[in-house]
Amino acid sequence: MQREVFSGFLGSCDDYEGAAAAILGAPMDQTASFRPGARHGPRQIRSVSEVLEEYSPRLDRDLADYRYADLGDVTVIPGNVEESLDRIAHSARRVFRDRKLLIMLGGEHLVTLPAVQSAAEVYPDLSVIHFDAHADLREIYLGVRLSHATVMRRVVETVGPERLFQFGIRSGTREEFAFARSAVNFHSGLRVEDVAGAAERLRGKPVYITLDIDVLDPSYAPGTGTPEPDGCTPGDLFSALEALADLEVIGFDLVEVCPPCDHSERTAILAAKLVREAILLFSRKQKPGGI
Amino acid sequence: MQREVFSGFLGSCDDYEGAAAAILGAPMDQTASFRPGARHGPRQIRSVSEVLEEYSPRLDRDLADYRYADLGDVTVIPGNVEESLDRIAHSARRVFRDRKLLIMLGGEHLVTLPAVQSAAEVYPDLSVIHFDAHADLREIYLGVRLSHATVMRRVVETVGPERLFQFGIRSGTREEFAFARSAVNFHSGLRVEDVAGAAERLRGKPVYITLDIDVLDPSYAPGTGTPEPDGCTPGDLFSALEALADLEVIGFDLVEVCPPCDHSERTAILAAKLVREAILLFSRKQKPGGI
Amino acid sequence: MQREVFSGFLGSCDDYEGAAAAILGAPMDQTASFRPGARHGPRQIRSVSEVLEEYSPRLDRDLADYRYADLGDVTVIPGNVEESLDRIAHSARRVFRDRKLLIMLGGEHLVTLPAVQSAAEVYPDLSVIHFDAHADLREIYLGVRLSHATVMRRVVETVGPERLFQFGIRSGTREEFAFARSAVNFHSGLRVEDVAGAAERLRGKPVYITLDIDVLDPSYAPGTGTPEPDGCTPGDLFSALEALADLEVIGFDLVEVCPPCDHSERTAILAAKLVREAILLFSRKQKPGGI
Amino acid sequence: MQREVFSGFLGSCDDYEGAAAAILGAPMDQTASFRPGARHGPRQIRSVSEVLEEYSPRLDRDLADYRYADLGDVTVIPGNVEESLDRIAHSARRVFRDRKLLIMLGGEHLVTLPAVQSAAEVYPDLSVIHFDAHADLREIYLGVRLSHATVMRRVVETVGPERLFQFGIRSGTREEFAFARSAVNFHSGLRVEDVAGAAERLRGKPVYITLDIDVLDPSYAPGTGTPEPDGCTPGDLFSALEALADLEVIGFDLVEVCPPCDHSERTAILAAKLVREAILLFSRKQKPGGI
Amino acid sequence: MQREVFSGFLGSCDDYEGAAAAILGAPMDQTASFRPGARHGPRQIRSVSEVLEEYSPRLDRDLADYRYADLGDVTVIPGNVEESLDRIAHSARRVFRDRKLLIMLGGEHLVTLPAVQSAAEVYPDLSVIHFDAHADLREIYLGVRLSHATVMRRVVETVGPERLFQFGIRSGTREEFAFARSAVNFHSGLRVEDVAGAAERLRGKPVYITLDIDVLDPSYAPGTGTPEPDGCTPGDLFSALEALADLEVIGFDLVEVCPPCDHSERTAILAAKLVREAILLFSRKQKPGGI
Amino acid sequence: MQREVFSGFLGSCDDYEGAAAAILGAPMDQTASFRPGARHGPRQIRSVSEVLEEYSPRLDRDLADYRYADLGDVTVIPGNVEESLDRIAHSARRVFRDRKLLIMLGGEHLVTLPAVQSAAEVYPDLSVIHFDAHADLREIYLGVRLSHATVMRRVVETVGPERLFQFGIRSGTREEFAFARSAVNFHSGLRVEDVAGAAERLRGKPVYITLDIDVLDPSYAPGTGTPEPDGCTPGDLFSALEALADLEVIGFDLVEVCPPCDHSERTAILAAKLVREAILLFSRKQKPGGI
Repeated sequence: MQREVFSGFLGSCDDYEGAAAAILGAPMDQTASFRPGARHGPRQIRSVSEVLEEYSPRLDRDLADYRYADLGDVTVIPGNVEESLDRIAHSARRVFRDRKLLIMLGGEHLVTLPAVQSAAEVYPDLSVIHFDAHADLREIYLGVRLSHATVMRRVVETVGPERLFQFGIRSGTREEFAFARSAVNFHSGLRVEDVAGAAERLRGKPVYITLDIDVLDPSYAPGTGTPEPDGCTPGDLFSALEALADLEVIGFDLVEVCPPCDHSERTAILAAKLVREAILLFSRKQKPGGI
Repeated sequence: MQREVFSGFLGSCDDYEGAAAAILGAPMDQTASFRPGARHGPRQIRSVSEVLEEYSPRLDRDLADYRYADLGDVTVIPGNVEESLDRIAHSARRVFRDRKLLIMLGGEHLVTLPAVQSAAEVYPDLSVIHFDAHADLREIYLGVRLSHATVMRRVVETVGPERLFQFGIRSGTREEFAFARSAVNFHSGLRVEDVAGAAERLRGKPVYITLDIDVLDPSYAPGTGTPEPDGCTPGDLFSALEALADLEVIGFDLVEVCPPCDHSERTAILAAKLVREAILLFSRKQKPGGI
Repeated sequence: MQREVFSGFLGSCDDYEGAAAAILGAPMDQTASFRPGARHGPRQIRSVSEVLEEYSPRLDRDLADYRYADLGDVTVIPGNVEESLDRIAHSARRVFRDRKLLIMLGGEHLVTLPAVQSAAEVYPDLSVIHFDAHADLREIYLGVRLSHATVMRRVVETVGPERLFQFGIRSGTREEFAFARSAVNFHSGLRVEDVAGAAERLRGKPVYITLDIDVLDPSYAPGTGTPEPDGCTPGDLFSALEALADLEVIGFDLVEVCPPCDHSERTAILAAKLVREAILLFSRKQKPGGI
Repeated sequence: MQREVFSGFLGSCDDYEGAAAAILGAPMDQTASFRPGARHGPRQIRSVSEVLEEYSPRLDRDLADYRYADLGDVTVIPGNVEESLDRIAHSARRVFRDRKLLIMLGGEHLVTLPAVQSAAEVYPDLSVIHFDAHADLREIYLGVRLSHATVMRRVVETVGPERLFQFGIRSGTREEFAFARSAVNFHSGLRVEDVAGAAERLRGKPVYITLDIDVLDPSYAPGTGTPEPDGCTPGDLFSALEALADLEVIGFDLVEVCPPCDHSERTAILAAKLVREAILLFSRKQKPGGI
Repeated sequence: MQREVFSGFLGSCDDYEGAAAAILGAPMDQTASFRPGARHGPRQIRSVSEVLEEYSPRLDRDLADYRYADLGDVTVIPGNVEESLDRIAHSARRVFRDRKLLIMLGGEHLVTLPAVQSAAEVYPDLSVIHFDAHADLREIYLGVRLSHATVMRRVVETVGPERLFQFGIRSGTREEFAFARSAVNFHSGLRVEDVAGAAERLRGKPVYITLDIDVLDPSYAPGTGTPEPDGCTPGDLFSALEALADLEVIGFDLVEVCPPCDHSERTAILAAKLVREAILLFSRKQKPGGI
Repeated sequence: MQREVFSGFLGSCDDYEGAAAAILGAPMDQTASFRPGARHGPRQIRSVSEVLEEYSPRLDRDLADYRYADLGDVTVIPGNVEESLDRIAHSARRVFRDRKLLIMLGGEHLVTLPAVQSAAEVYPDLSVIHFDAHADLREIYLGVRLSHATVMRRVVETVGPERLFQFGIRSGTREEFAFARSAVNFHSGLRVEDVAGAAERLRGKPVYITLDIDVLDPSYAPGTGTPEPDGCTPGDLFSALEALADLEVIGFDLVEVCPPCDHSERTAILAAKLVREAILLFSRKQKPGGI
C-alpha cells in the first residue's frame, strides 16, 4: 500500500546481478559553456518516466519482459573533471565486463568519453554511432582537451575515425566540418536510409550509441544547454533507433538534457521514452527472475 | 468605451436562447495521475481567445455569422467525483435537449463521460470520434472505474465498441491495445484519409467528437498533464476536423489543457483556435438576432 | 563511488525497525480548491533536502546522532478520497503503534485527518497544535465533509475542541472565526509566548503538530496552493517549534507545499529545514545501530 | 449549479445603480520603461481574488455587507496615450459624479492622473495620499510629460503640492527628492504614526488614495515592473490603510501589478486582499438590495 | 584574457565605417495589443547569439569573412510612438545612405515602417518581402493608424501594393484577406517555389525583407506576442531565405521576438541563427580590415 | 539618439585610467554543488541595473559624482578551475596595484579567493569581512581544496584567522562551526552593532568585503544556488555596509547571484543596488574627467 523511496527508472529493479542491462546516471555539467544544469538530467528523466506506459505500441514490446537495474548516479566532483571521468569509467567498466548493456543518462556530453574508453577496453573493435546537432570534434576548446566540445575528437582517438558514424550534425566550426567530412562517416541530416546503411556495415560488431538530445529540433527538446535550431523530429529519431535494432549494441547514452531550461518537462519525458525504446530494442528479453 | 466583465470565449454572447451552440467549461482535474491543473483550462482558453481573429482564412468563414453562448463553468466539487460528473451531465443534457451544439472545454478527460452519456440519452444512435495520444480504455485504474484513464472504456459501455472511432493513439497498456485493435475502430496515427473513411460511415448519424489536446505532439501542446512524445501536428488535426465537416456533430469537447505546464500559453491559444474552427465547422450559421 | 537510487530525506535510512522516527509522504491534493500540485510536495522536499547541512547551529544538534527511516509515499488514489485517507491511516497507525515519531509530508491538509485519527487510537488523550493561515474549521465545504477546508473541524470532532491549539490563523469565514474564538484555543498571530503558554499546558501529554506551510508569509513560502498575505516569518516559526521542545510530540506533519507554484524551490527548502529541526527537536537521539 | 462567465472581483455585482462603490480596470502599460505587462494586472487581480474569504478577521467586517459593482476594464488604445487617458477619465468621472467610491485597478501608474483629474472636478478640495517606492515627480521623462515617472508631478499641478502626501518613497533623482522634501508632504518610510498624522490633517476632506504595489518590498510583490529593494511589509501597509479608516475616501487605486513578473501570483493575491480591505474600510456598508 | 563589455551580435565589430552591414536594435513594443515585451528582443537576440558558431554548414560560409557593425539600440520613447519612429528612421536612413545593408532587430512590427520609409527615400523602386502569420493590413486599428496591426498597409502606401510580397499569412480579418488577395502578391503558405517565383521577378531590384518571427509555428517560436498556430518550420524559412540569395537585399528586419514569453530562449536563438544566415546571404563578403 | 552596445553597470564608463573603481565580472560556477547558473550573474546584474536611479536617498549621494570603469568579464574556462582562478587573479591584481577599488561580480564564491590573494600581495595587512549564510570553512569538500564550500578556509590561510570577520553564518558542519567559533571573528547573525564593533577594530587598515547574496533570506534573494532559510533583510545589510563607511575598503565582491533560479529578477536588482551603495560608500568621489 506504500511506495518505496526507490525511485529508479520506470520498471527498473535494483537486482544488478539478475539484470541484462544497467542504468547509470552521470550528473556532470562542469564543462558546459552556455547554460549549465545537465547535472539534473538523470534525476528528472527518472522522475518523469512514470508518465509513460511500460508497453511500446510502436515496437509491440513491454518492459515487463525485460530486466534492468538502475544503479543510481555516479558521484561527480564539481571542480574536478578528471576525477569525475575516472569515476564514470569505473562504474561503466564493471557493466561492460559483466557483459550487460550500459544505459547511461547524462549529464553533459563529455561523460560519453569514459564510457567509450571503458567499452573499448572490453570490446576492442568497438564502433560508435553519434546523434547530435554539434560535431563535438574540436581538437581543443578554450585551452582544454576534455570538454563537451571536444568529446567526439577524443572518441575518434579511442576508436579511430573510420569507426565513428555521425548523424544530424548541423553546427560546428569550419575546421570541424572539414575534418568530419574527410575523416569520419559523417551525415549532416538524420535520414533513416543513411542509418540503415551504417547498420549494414556494423552488423555483428559491438556498437556504442551516443545520443545528444539536441539532435532534435529545440521545439521538441528545449531543455538542453546549447539548442541548435532546425533539427530532426522524434519520429526521425525513433525510426533511426529501430534501424539499429539488429546490431550488437553494448552501450547507449542519452546526454545533455538540462531541466532548468524546460519548465514543461517534455524534454525529459521524450528522453525517458527514448530510453524505454532503447531498452526494448537493445537489451536481451528476460523473464523476471531468470536470464 | 468600456469592456464588460463578461469574459466568455471570443465572440460569444450570453443569449443562450438565441444561440445555436453553447460553450460550457468543465474545470475538473481530480483524477489526474501525473500533473494536475487542467481545471484552469477553460479559464485560460477563454482568456487567450482574444488573440485570434474571428475570421478563419482556412475555412473562409467568420464567427460574426454564428451565434453561440458561453454558459461559463460547471461548479465542480473537489473531492467528489460523482457529484461533479452529475453536474456536468445536468448542464450538458440541457444543451442536447435543446438541440444545440455542445462545445465543452475541459478539464480532464473524464468530463467527456457525462457529456457522452447525456448525449446518448437524446441521440440513441450516437457515435464517438476520439482524438488522443492515450487509449483511455482501461477497465479500471488504481482501483477506480471513473478516471481519465478509463473514460473511453466507459464510453464504449455507453455507445458500444463499434461506435467508437479512435485516432492518434500511441500510448496504453498491452491490454488496452489488444482491446482497441480487436473491438473498436482503432487508428494509431492521425491520417486524414482514415478520418475521411470514418466520416463516410457516419454520414447522417449523430456524432460526438472528443479531442484530447495531447493527441498533438508536446512541442505544439506542452500544456497538458500527461504529454506523450511523437504526436501529430496542428495541420493534421485541422485537416481531420475539416474531413468531418459534413457530419451531424452534436457535441465537441477539447480536454486536458493544463495551463501551469505551459508558460507560453500556446497550448491554450491552439485550443482556442481549434474551438473556433469547430464552431465554424459544426455549428449552424446564423445572423445575429435570428436563427 | 556511486550513489544509490534511494532518495529519501536528508540523512534518512531505510531501516524502519532501528529507527526512532519515520518519514511518510502523503502525495494527495484531490480536494484542493484553488491551485492543485501539493501531491508533488513530498518528492520535492526530499529532493532539495540535500542542500541542507545535517548540523543545526540553532539547536547545536546533528542529524548524524539520530536515526529515522524514510518509508516513501503512500499510494494515493486520484479520484477516491476515502480510500486514499484509509491508506494514509493504515501507514500512520503502524508508526504510532510502534511508538515511533511520525513525520508526515503532504500533500494537502486533509491528510492530517487520518494521521490524527490513527494517533488518537493509540494516544487517547491526544492534543493537536495547528499552525496555519486558514482556520480550516468549516463544517462542510462545497457539500463535502472531507476537505482541506474542513479538516480541523473533523480534528475537533476527534480530539475535542479544548485539545486543539491554533496559531497564525488569519483567514476564514465569519462563522469559522466565531467558532474558533469561542470553542478552541485560538490565536490569530504566532507569538512565541502564546506557544510557550500552550506548551506549559501540554507538558507530559501526547501532542500532534500539524504545520500548514501557508502560515508563513507568501514571500517565504510562495509554493503553496492558497497563499494568504501577511503571515509570519521563518524565525517566528523556528522559535515556536523550539518552544515545544520539551513536549511529548508523537506526530508532526508539514503540508501544502505545492512545487508548481514556486520555481525557486525555496518553499520546499524551507520545508526541509523545518523537518530537519522537527527531527532534532522531537525525535529521540540515537547512535547509529542502536536505540 | 453553474457559474456565470461574469468574473468580476470577489463578491462584486454588476448592479452599478445599487452599489456604493465601483471597480474599474485600467489595463494600460504604454509608458512603462523597464518591464511592461501591468496591462494584465486587472485581469489577474480579479481572477485570483477567489482565493480570499469575504470576511476580514483583521477588520471583523465582511464583504457580504457591502455592495460594489465591477464595471470591467476601460478599453485602452495601445499607442495612443492621450486617448487612453481620456477614456479612463470618462469612466472615472461618472463614478465620482454619482458619489460612489472609485476602486481602480492598474495598469501603470499614469492611469492615476485621469482619475485624480476627474475627482478634482467633482471634489475641488481634493487631497491625494500616495504610497510608492518611487517619487514619480519628474517634470519630464524621456521628453514626455505623460509618463509613469512624472505622474505625481502632474497630480501636484492638479491639487497643489500641499495636498499631496507621500509615503514609502525610496527612489528618485536628486532633483525629485529635493522637490519632494521642500514642496510636498514627504515621507521616505511608511510609519503608521506618520500616516495617522496625515489622517488627522485630512479629516472631513475628500481624499484620493493611490497605491503603487512597489511600495512593498519586492519579496512581497515581485510582480511589478520596476521593483525597488528595501520596501515595507504588508503589515505596514494594512496598518497604514486602517489609520485612514475615518477619512472621506472618494477614490482608491492600486497600480503596477505586472503578472508576467510573478509566476507565483502572490503579488496579485496581495493586491486583491488590499482591495478587499479598501472596500471594507472606505465604502459605505449596505444590505444587498438597499443603500 | 578579459572580455570587453561590448556585447554586440556574434562576431560583430563597432567599426561602422569599415563595415558592409549594420545591426540596429529597435526595442519598441508600445502598440502591442496582446502581450508586450518585444522591447527586450534585441538584447536577448544579441545575448544568446554566442551559442552559435560563426560558420554555417548549410551555406558553407563563415561570419569571419564578413564585416558588420553593431550600432546598438535606438532610444525609444515609451508613450511617444511618433518620436520613437522618427528616431528609428533617422538611424536607418544613415545606413541606407551609406549603402550598407541594414539588419534591424525588433521590437514590434511597427518598427518596420520607418525603416521601409527611409529605404524608399534612398531606393525609390523598393520592393518589400514580408514573412508573417498576420496580414497586418488593417486600414486602422483601435482608432490608430500606426500600429503593429496596420504596418503593412502603411508599407503598401509607401511602395505600392504590387511591390509587396507576402508569405505565410494565416490570420487577419475578412477585409484584410480580401484586400491582400486582390491587391498585393499574397501567399497564405510559405512554399519555396512561390518565394523563388517572387525572386525571379525581383532580380536586380532593391529589396527589403521583413520577417515577423510568428510566421513560424509557435512550437518553434513561442517567444512572441501574438502566436498563431499552424505555421511554418525553420527549414521552410531557411530555404525561403536561400531562394532570395541572389537579390539585391538592402534591408532585413526580424521582429516580434518577445523574451518574457519564452523561458527556454529558443525563439531568440532561432532569431539569431536567422540573422546569421541573413548576413551570410545578403551582406558583401569582406576580409577584416578591407572592403 | 542611439544607445551604444556598451552595456556596463549603471553609470559606468570604459575609461579605466580615469576611474577610481573598476567593476569586474567573474562568471564562474564550476564548483557549484547544488544548482549551477551563477555564471550568468554578472550579465544580469549589469542588465537590470538600469532600473535603478543613480541617486541614493539613503546615502544622499549620486553616482554622477563618481567615476568607475566596467572592465567586463574575465574569460573563465569551463572545466579548468585553476586556470580560471589564475585569470581572475591576473585581472584583480592589476586593479589593486593601480590602487583602485575592485568591485567584483560573481559567479560562485570561489572567485573570492584569487581576488583576496591578489589583494593580500598588494596590501599585506589585509582583513576580510564576510557576509554569508554558509561558513565556507571546510578544509576539503568532495576531495577538492578549491570549492565554494572551502573558499573561506583558503582565505583564512591567506590572511590569518584573526583577520577574518564573519557575519550572518547560519549553515555549516559541526566541524566548521567549532572552527569558526574558536578561530575567527564569528557572528551567526547580522547585527549592525557587531559590524560596527568590527569596523572599530579595522579602522585605518585595508579591508576586503565579500558578500554572498545568500546571507539574505531567500525571500529577498531567491536567485542563488544554495538558498538557506531564515536570513537577514536588505535593511540589515544596507545598515551593515553603512557601518563600514569609514573603512579603507580596497575590494568588494558580491557573489552567488544565480539568474535561472529567479524569474522575477529581483535578486539581481537587489545585488545591483548593493553594488551602487558600495560604490557610493567605498569609492573616492570624483568629478568626471578628474581624479
